Amino acid sequence: MSSIPVRNPRTGEIDYWITPPKLSEECDRLRMAQPVWAESLEQRISALQQWQQAIQTHREALLTALVADTGRFGVSVLEIDSVLSSLDRWCKLAPELLQEIEKPTAIPFIHLKQDSVPYPLVGVISPWNFPFLLAMIDTIPALLAGCAVIVKPSEIAPRFIQPLLKTLDEVPKLREIFTVIEGAGETGAALIEQVDLVCFTGSVKTGRIVAEAAAKQFIPAFLELGGKDPAIVLKSADLDLATSAILWGSVVNTGQSCLSIERIYVDQSIAEPFTEQLVSKAKQLKLAYPTVNSGEIGPMIAERQAAIISDQLQDAIDKGAIVQCGGKVENLAGGWWCYPTVLTNVDHSMKIMTEETFGAIMPIMPFTTVEEAVQLANDTIYGLSAAVFAGSETEALSVGDRIQAGAISINDAALTALIHEGEKNAFNYSGMGGSRMGSAALKRFMRKKAYLIKTKPVTDPWWFQ
Amino acid sequence: MSSIPVRNPRTGEIDYWITPPKLSEECDRLRMAQPVWAESLEQRISALQQWQQAIQTHREALLTALVADTGRFGVSVLEIDSVLSSLDRWCKLAPELLQEIEKPTAIPFIHLKQDSVPYPLVGVISPWNFPFLLAMIDTIPALLAGCAVIVKPSEIAPRFIQPLLKTLDEVPKLREIFTVIEGAGETGAALIEQVDLVCFTGSVKTGRIVAEAAAKQFIPAFLELGGKDPAIVLKSADLDLATSAILWGSVVNTGQSCLSIERIYVDQSIAEPFTEQLVSKAKQLKLAYPTVNSGEIGPMIAERQAAIISDQLQDAIDKGAIVQCGGKVENLAGGWWCYPTVLTNVDHSMKIMTEETFGAIMPIMPFTTVEEAVQLANDTIYGLSAAVFAGSETEALSVGDRIQAGAISINDAALTALIHEGEKNAFNYSGMGGSRMGSAALKRFMRKKAYLIKTKPVTDPWWFQ
Repeated sequence: MSSIPVRNPRTGEIDYWITPPKLSEECDRLRMAQPVWAESLEQRISALQQWQQAIQTHREALLTALVADTGRFGVSVLEIDSVLSSLDRWCKLAPELLQEIEKPTAIPFIHLKQDSVPYPLVGVISPWNFPFLLAMIDTIPALLAGCAVIVKPSEIAPRFIQPLLKTLDEVPKLREIFTVIEGAGETGAALIEQVDLVCFTGSVKTGRIVAEAAAKQFIPAFLELGGKDPAIVLKSADLDLATSAILWGSVVNTGQSCLSIERIYVDQSIAEPFTEQLVSKAKQLKLAYPTVNSGEIGPMIAERQAAIISDQLQDAIDKGAIVQCGGKVENLAGGWWCYPTVLTNVDHSMKIMTEETFGAIMPIMPFTTVEEAVQLANDTIYGLSAAVFAGSETEALSVGDRIQAGAISINDAALTALIHEGEKNAFNYSGMGGSRMGSAALKRFMRKKAYLIKTKPVTDPWWFQ
Repeated sequence: MSSIPVRNPRTGEIDYWITPPKLSEECDRLRMAQPVWAESLEQRISALQQWQQAIQTHREALLTALVADTGRFGVSVLEIDSVLSSLDRWCKLAPELLQEIEKPTAIPFIHLKQDSVPYPLVGVISPWNFPFLLAMIDTIPALLAGCAVIVKPSEIAPRFIQPLLKTLDEVPKLREIFTVIEGAGETGAALIEQVDLVCFTGSVKTGRIVAEAAAKQFIPAFLELGGKDPAIVLKSADLDLATSAILWGSVVNTGQSCLSIERIYVDQSIAEPFTEQLVSKAKQLKLAYPTVNSGEIGPMIAERQAAIISDQLQDAIDKGAIVQCGGKVENLAGGWWCYPTVLTNVDHSMKIMTEETFGAIMPIMPFTTVEEAVQLANDTIYGLSAAVFAGSETEALSVGDRIQAGAISINDAALTALIHEGEKNAFNYSGMGGSRMGSAALKRFMRKKAYLIKTKPVTDPWWFQ
């Protein structure tokens, strides 16, 4: 296959090329080595701990590549730290999660022994918004489960792959059953035909294609797709807390996050002070331009996203939305940038309230009753997560209870970015398959196997017809 | 839609007709009532216990219909008893399984509350071999989870539906969210477009169609498909135990069971006495003809199955298989019958060793090494379950460990027919999705929802880019 050009998010220039590998050879190699990998959890933990060290050794090269891939600095540091702590957490959890269970059954002389068998080869297709973190979020539990793993990150942010492979070269046992390959959609599609299970993080549109391709291959697909996460702010909420948390939840990583807050519903009695505070806080944020350390807002990683956001903004303004701050997408020296934007006078006839934005846009819509707020929050094809702010936990929970989404942050926003213990499933089109968080995240990479053991030789058959 | 004729398995005559319902009206009705059903587990348990009573009240009518559907008596009694005890078991287990969990997280001032939300409407498409039991095996945990359920049993054995609906009429709260409809493949396909999750039990061929249709609808599919379960008999095995258990596991329900033993691999040093014993025991079984109480072997329920078994037998004989007993499919007064058949001199070039038979056929193949036995057992597109017989549990487990199947019976056969506690997933083409056994069977009908609760008002955002 020929090389694929990669655009730089800060300069807009093509300054990198990737080359898809010979996929079936790679997969055969991993598959061949997997049974030995699956034999000993102790050795898997030891290999992953060596890999942690190798990541530390190559940290600078990895960070430089991630900064080039994404144009931003702070989140790139966080990605590396997050992968390192995820390795810690899973290595600690795995021994208990992989324990075999033995117990008696309803029939006295038959015992049950419960075991799990890893899927031999797991394919991971990961996105460009958190290139390293989201390439590893499913990979690490899959590796600990005993699977071989092949990861294909997005062709939009692939520079971290080469330094990552250097870290793997330092742990030969891991390298045998784990690789990361370059490639675009075509390689992703071919990957699905080679693996025993596929994890995909990305858009609803591509996710549905992956689901159908996986069904054709008769393999499980774990899909983590888009969101249009609502925040509901009740009359009793602490406004300072709510505006800070929502600003963070909306603007972190320039809004390029599936779990970012993209719709804000505020009790009309507090809508005005809420908006004022949010606008005032949003205005304090600066673009990280011309250097990565100049401010808080990074460039847009994907050029096509700039067009989508511009279109959604224009559509909203055409239909009557009022820009309270920000409000436009700019090209600065080749990169695409968008100031944190607060919109009012919005409604659900606007794309900005129904389609995923993936940008630092905060549209505010007042509500008069809690029923109305819940109805608006649930008026979506998505169901990833949501946030509720109220004076008491009980009040907030009673509203969160009625929102159709897998994770509800209470008096904070986008907490699944920080807390990975909670099991959650996507609602509607936001995803499919086992939870990537909580202990289920590891268990979903294994098939359950039950041994039913007759402990007493009873030879009479019970019945025939 | 027009009526569909139904053949009687004993007389071969069309003596029953079914009519598919207005599907979308039925589904709307169930969907509307589901939120109330989901509110209280206590009320769900109480409704299901009332239903147990109603099944007892209508037991005779239900049994008569099942006997007409299947042509056999003993298994029909067992189906009813099994559903009744399954209701007992699930009503006892559900309260613990549905408990909410609360725990601290890695961040001290953020707490996690774990909840589950039922899929609103579950569709169950069930087969003809255990018409009542397999229509209810997924339905009961789904109902307890809080789902509404619509079941479409096979058009080949649908007579039990009307008496079953009479039992539901006695429990109005259950009737509102649970129905059983008549229909064939077309109705099944339409059902998938109406529900939020589909359970299918049937052939690999149809199962793959269901998987693709579900992916198109973007809903989970839980598939329980065919098997070609092997039994491995090691040199150290108790022959009397092994032959009795394998005979039962192969011949029960006339072999019309996904988990029946369809391939027997015996250590060559004991192949001769094993075969002699199995043949002698098989010859003692009689057809349940002319009445249901005449013997142990019922008629074939599906006419097309008679043709498949005849073809597989002929193929085997043409390729050199030797019939030790049984060996032919007969039509007696309109019904199709097959004597328990033991074959020797078989190999994997024969359909009888590779394709699902669904009949009382026991092909025996000797092996010289355990490696060979394991390789033969795994030489299949299926991976449902298996059986291993050996002098010690340890020896048997060491072989079972290497067989790629979800459930392994040790010193017995087909134990998943009796023991439902063990979680198991299908390997290869034998199925897909969460385990229908063990506590996972209930949990798979719920989406996990995580509440992440900030308990202290910290207003500083952590990082932006």
